[in-house]
Amino acid sequence: MDTIDRALKEAGASAYVIYASSEDANMFYLTGFKTGDPVFYLKCDGNPATLIVPQMEYERAVSESRCEVMTRGDAGYFEIFEEECDPLRAGAKMVCAQAGGDLLVPGTFPLALAREMESFCNIYVDKTTVKNMRALKNPHEIKAIKSVQRAAEGAMDIAVSMIKKAEPRGSVLYYDSEPLTSDMVRAEMQCYLLRLGCTAADTIVSCGPETAMPHNKGNGALLMDEPIVIDVFPRSEKTGYHADMTRTFVRGEPSREIEDIYNTVKEAKALGWSFIRPGVSGSEVHQAVLDFFTDAGYESGTGGFMHSLGHGVGLDIHENPALSPSGGELREGHVITVEPGLYYQGIGGVRLEDMGTVTKDGFDCFTKYKEEIRI
Amino acid sequence: MDTIDRALKEAGASAYVIYASSEDANMFYLTGFKTGDPVFYLKCDGNPATLIVPQMEYERAVSESRCEVMTRGDAGYFEIFEEECDPLRAGAKMVCAQAGGDLLVPGTFPLALAREMESFCNIYVDKTTVKNMRALKNPHEIKAIKSVQRAAEGAMDIAVSMIKKAEPRGSVLYYDSEPLTSDMVRAEMQCYLLRLGCTAADTIVSCGPETAMPHNKGNGALLMDEPIVIDVFPRSEKTGYHADMTRTFVRGEPSREIEDIYNTVKEAKALGWSFIRPGVSGSEVHQAVLDFFTDAGYESGTGGFMHSLGHGVGLDIHENPALSPSGGELREGHVITVEPGLYYQGIGGVRLEDMGTVTKDGFDCFTKYKEEIRI
Repeated sequence: MDTIDRALKEAGASAYVIYASSEDANMFYLTGFKTGDPVFYLKCDGNPATLIVPQMEYERAVSESRCEVMTRGDAGYFEIFEEECDPLRAGAKMVCAQAGGDLLVPGTFPLALAREMESFCNIYVDKTTVKNMRALKNPHEIKAIKSVQRAAEGAMDIAVSMIKKAEPRGSVLYYDSEPLTSDMVRAEMQCYLLRLGCTAADTIVSCGPETAMPHNKGNGALLMDEPIVIDVFPRSEKTGYHADMTRTFVRGEPSREIEDIYNTVKEAKALGWSFIRPGVSGSEVHQAVLDFFTDAGYESGTGGFMHSLGHGVGLDIHENPALSPSGGELREGHVITVEPGLYYQGIGGVRLEDMGTVTKDGFDCFTKYKEEIRI
Repeated sequence: MDTIDRALKEAGASAYVIYASSEDANMFYLTGFKTGDPVFYLKCDGNPATLIVPQMEYERAVSESRCEVMTRGDAGYFEIFEEECDPLRAGAKMVCAQAGGDLLVPGTFPLALAREMESFCNIYVDKTTVKNMRALKNPHEIKAIKSVQRAAEGAMDIAVSMIKKAEPRGSVLYYDSEPLTSDMVRAEMQCYLLRLGCTAADTIVSCGPETAMPHNKGNGALLMDEPIVIDVFPRSEKTGYHADMTRTFVRGEPSREIEDIYNTVKEAKALGWSFIRPGVSGSEVHQAVLDFFTDAGYESGTGGFMHSLGHGVGLDIHENPALSPSGGELREGHVITVEPGLYYQGIGGVRLEDMGTVTKDGFDCFTKYKEEIRI
């Protein structure tokens, strides 16, 4: 039986409904349809899934989506709008009429729309079905993710060669006689990725004190002898899949503290890998690395190891499963990152991140990129 | 009185809560904080707004957001998680405890979280407060939007010069001895925008039959004598604001039908502009253009003018107000597009889109870009 149909049966609902743009990974996963504006996905028990779209999107949805398609006009929207005079309520009523029974919706379903629908039927929340479907990658998805990973590594090469080519003047790195900034490195990485059909908003190129904040994007000139954290997570515009990788470099000579941290983080990553196999929980893997850091003298709190060890990667950059205190069981076909990091105000931060898939008996790492602090 | 406090008073709620990443425009608007993962925004009546973030984001939120900041650890999350063993429920309980009363949330609030919170307090839905705040732009926002519009026009110049430089071989345009494709034009436009600090995913460069679908992104080689629709809507990575513009071109000689459509769409845009002023409703402006098309012999249905005349532009590419059948009253400071289009299977489509602000007595157009079908 279809997984969605099974969830409907368990919930006692007639139809699964999503209302979202394709920025919502559940929507894109189930439909293959790219849309900047929200549309309705409706899957009635035992029937094929249907998209309900504005007239202007009809032809495109027919040719680009994997669903049956109807216009909202054909679904009776305009007659209902005449009565209700409110687009949200009219949409709710239209979908409830099409569904003809109680609805199951994902946890991200918008509350305002759910409240309108509750005048017509019961709404049940599904927290896991589509998320769990998405977490298990099939060979096509793995191929798509690996292809983005190759692009990410090419972008990392761009960054490394810019930093290598730069010349120090005092503590600042200069490139073609101007200071080499985070923005310059980011722009070249992104242009490279664009030409491969990938976008990479918010690439992190942080340096020095910024590296103590894991998600500081980085600003201004890159410096000699300071850690430079580069975290790039491109997405294929065509397939929608992401990759995710991080390296930390120093141009010149790292401080003793940063070099020790680097070596410890590198060991932690290998340790994390070694724990990954089906049946182990994400929380155990996370805890093993946390314990390793503590034993090595790196206590966690306001500094130290202050994020999860890793996360699933797919249509969302962060999805199930989690390698975190609440992470559940790992299964073959999960695609996850392993990204230990240590961060200290006044010293800086180091993060190393690889990505791969859980195999029958371990972890197949997709990331093939050198790990050397000095460049 | 603060607008949010007024909404709280009217709803009888103690606190306004949002749970979202900064992809949610309400979140970014109220906090100025960029985050890929969802965090809690909490505004208790009469108090300053607070962000509740994971430890790893604390320093960054303090330095980058406009809010008070507390870690979820300080908000008691981990003790609650010990009891509840479910991250969603623990987050719900933590925020309800901090709020100390009933909550007002935006319409996009995730249903699963709302259901958890409903065990602790009442949840009221706010459909309009933050959306309406966002629709009215202050001078800083208008400056930010105009600056992105200049970048969009530069990107349009890139596209035009590539198409002009290309040479026809039969019906196909060639560029540096290879067919000039949508992807090549899009990539160059996007690289140009990136260097100006803007991203522009999903830029439309469609040609020939594709142009009959308003949101067909375009694939493959560009053709002589066929309409080429270029719709670019970049966003500043720094400010988060968008611009939006569309032009339609023909390299070579347009068909008689396409040229007639072009001239009619151009007239429709001028007509739309002429109706815009404070106090007029978006639906009236839309209807005026629809009537004009009908009178000119361009009926709408499965083809013709099959989308709204325009939309607000800001942190979201589509936001309030709408120039559509359900569009409400226009006010001074609204920033809107005017984008009539006509689309026919077998003939093609034409869309022209400008953007500007509603002024005291009319419309100040930000778009300064030529309108010529032949290039």
